[in-house]
Amino acid sequence: MNRVLKSYWGNPSSGYAKGKMSAQIIEKARENVAAAIGAHSHEVYFSSCATESNNALLKTVSNHFYPEKNKIISTPIEHPSVANTLEYLKTKGIDVQYCPVDSSGRVVLKELEAMIDDKTFLVCCMLANNEIGTIQDIKKISAMAKAKDALVFSDCVQALGKIPINVKELGVDYATFSAHKLYGPKGVGAWYAKISCPLEPYIHGGSQEEGMRAGTESIHNIAGFGEACKHVDKLISLSMKNEPLKKMFITELKEIKKDLIVNSPIDNCLVNTINLTFPGISSGELMKMLDYKGVAVSSGSACSASSNKPSHVLKAIGLTDDEAQESIRISFGVKTKDKHIKYALKVMKQYILEEKNVKELNSLVKLKESGL
Amino acid sequence: MNRVLKSYWGNPSSGYAKGKMSAQIIEKARENVAAAIGAHSHEVYFSSCATESNNALLKTVSNHFYPEKNKIISTPIEHPSVANTLEYLKTKGIDVQYCPVDSSGRVVLKELEAMIDDKTFLVCCMLANNEIGTIQDIKKISAMAKAKDALVFSDCVQALGKIPINVKELGVDYATFSAHKLYGPKGVGAWYAKISCPLEPYIHGGSQEEGMRAGTESIHNIAGFGEACKHVDKLISLSMKNEPLKKMFITELKEIKKDLIVNSPIDNCLVNTINLTFPGISSGELMKMLDYKGVAVSSGSACSASSNKPSHVLKAIGLTDDEAQESIRISFGVKTKDKHIKYALKVMKQYILEEKNVKELNSLVKLKESGL
Repeated sequence: MNRVLKSYWGNPSSGYAKGKMSAQIIEKARENVAAAIGAHSHEVYFSSCATESNNALLKTVSNHFYPEKNKIISTPIEHPSVANTLEYLKTKGIDVQYCPVDSSGRVVLKELEAMIDDKTFLVCCMLANNEIGTIQDIKKISAMAKAKDALVFSDCVQALGKIPINVKELGVDYATFSAHKLYGPKGVGAWYAKISCPLEPYIHGGSQEEGMRAGTESIHNIAGFGEACKHVDKLISLSMKNEPLKKMFITELKEIKKDLIVNSPIDNCLVNTINLTFPGISSGELMKMLDYKGVAVSSGSACSASSNKPSHVLKAIGLTDDEAQESIRISFGVKTKDKHIKYALKVMKQYILEEKNVKELNSLVKLKESGL
Repeated sequence: MNRVLKSYWGNPSSGYAKGKMSAQIIEKARENVAAAIGAHSHEVYFSSCATESNNALLKTVSNHFYPEKNKIISTPIEHPSVANTLEYLKTKGIDVQYCPVDSSGRVVLKELEAMIDDKTFLVCCMLANNEIGTIQDIKKISAMAKAKDALVFSDCVQALGKIPINVKELGVDYATFSAHKLYGPKGVGAWYAKISCPLEPYIHGGSQEEGMRAGTESIHNIAGFGEACKHVDKLISLSMKNEPLKKMFITELKEIKKDLIVNSPIDNCLVNTINLTFPGISSGELMKMLDYKGVAVSSGSACSASSNKPSHVLKAIGLTDDEAQESIRISFGVKTKDKHIKYALKVMKQYILEEKNVKELNSLVKLKESGL
């Protein structure tokens, strides 16, 4: 990225040599992204982030089919950038139906099949959930949609760099990706659109990205995304190495907190994601303490952090509002080591025991006050 | 930007300390952009580029007013990111009318005044033209619009860093900006929306940018934009220093090519922009030769470079298709020096004289072939 910022400042759309050099950087990056997801490079479009990619595809594909076909089937556990775009599309006449998920966050395939009708132009289901890590059976979902002449859109943002992705094998028509989820820079995303699938311009202006996404390209960000994609296999194998760490973490936490609930499924789940409910403990307070001790964890997604509402994902898999507010999401990175996990466990243990002591003390005080 | 990439990798929407540090970087940059344009920082929204900013404002403001009010008055010389968005809005029921400009590219104010009616919700006029440099009297245009209860939108992308801008003095309600036009990074833009003016989300998802533009922020790009804005006064004074160079360049070119036409106006024009018609010389061939010799010039804007159509700006100021195809745009940078201009003049002189010789030789050959 530094090299690009210093030497490739020509506008990629300009006719002069400096511009053409920049255009080459972009095309090279496009090939790298395409290779990482099993696509042809002319099926890959760059955008400024996955949220934009999700908006671009959902809005323009809807515009293409509406009003002849007006239905999208999705799930109640999509990322806010899909969920909120679908809610917006409802105000524009699109009939959005949500297929239920089971307690692991898995789409109930029988129900899905029954929901797809001849008005359905799109089935929209993420590959891996960002809050609990559940991986969907997109292959089966694609087959179901194809059988009823509907297209398939999959938000693959959370999965890229963590599990192998091949859009052709998944059978999807559209998919979205983000660089910063695989150690690339923030501010660049991409979408995949299968050749011959409908696509309309999302940002109007110049002819960048085949006229589908106008605007001078962030060449250094795109180059960074391409570079990250070159390491996708290595990232996946590093991520897989976290499996025993994850097991050890959960086992030890359960010893400290017997009633701990693990919301992430055991099978078909991203290795790096663990979602946990600590009954009786406010996730806000727990997060604050952990942050103070240098351990960064989240509740829900960063994209819904400011809303203070209980996670829509946790509610969809059956948690109560209270349980959702007692839950946190812990993510491992490729550099997470044994010692980091042990440190996190130590501070969590201290906090949980202190909380328990404080509660017991409070009960004793109350007992005493009541004169017993 | 390097510092941010290395140390500020926390997601600005996350609750933990690393995230809050990133959020602070963004807010500091917002203050710097706001200061550069005379706005309050909560009136500044970041986007991925000026094209996106133009799309966001034009589309969402139209959505707000339509169908109660349905008319936008604009000009025929807007940048493709405005022009093509307006053409798109026409397909959605918006009545877009273009006010004529004179031979300097100046909006004919009398005509504009007559065109604004009670159906008009927006007057859309760029501050400085990107191809010929013409600076519009936005203050007057704003006053005219206000008198008829219409809002004013000004694409100020080409002007920032070249002339002083104060959105409050200009009286505009909306304005757009791009970092890379003032030596900031590519891939970050901003828009100004006056408090209390209608604004709706353009990208749906998380609550970034007050929910108007969802998506994880490109923190390093935003930081770069903020940094560039800190130097806006210096950039303007450096740009002003090009005035004598520009005069010398035009004078000397006229000596080589007597029929040279200067399309950029003399007064109220960006100092760095010169648009010239070389009658009888293909701009494509001239550009290729200049590029080969290391001089980068354009015809039209980079955002319309691949279309091969004669510039809509040059046609709007009265040039024929042929004249438009014989025109190039030369831009000076803040680092452009006397020696660069002299070198460009030298290679242009050579080419023009050679072209002349070739043409004369061809005529002689033809004369000889015809037996005279």
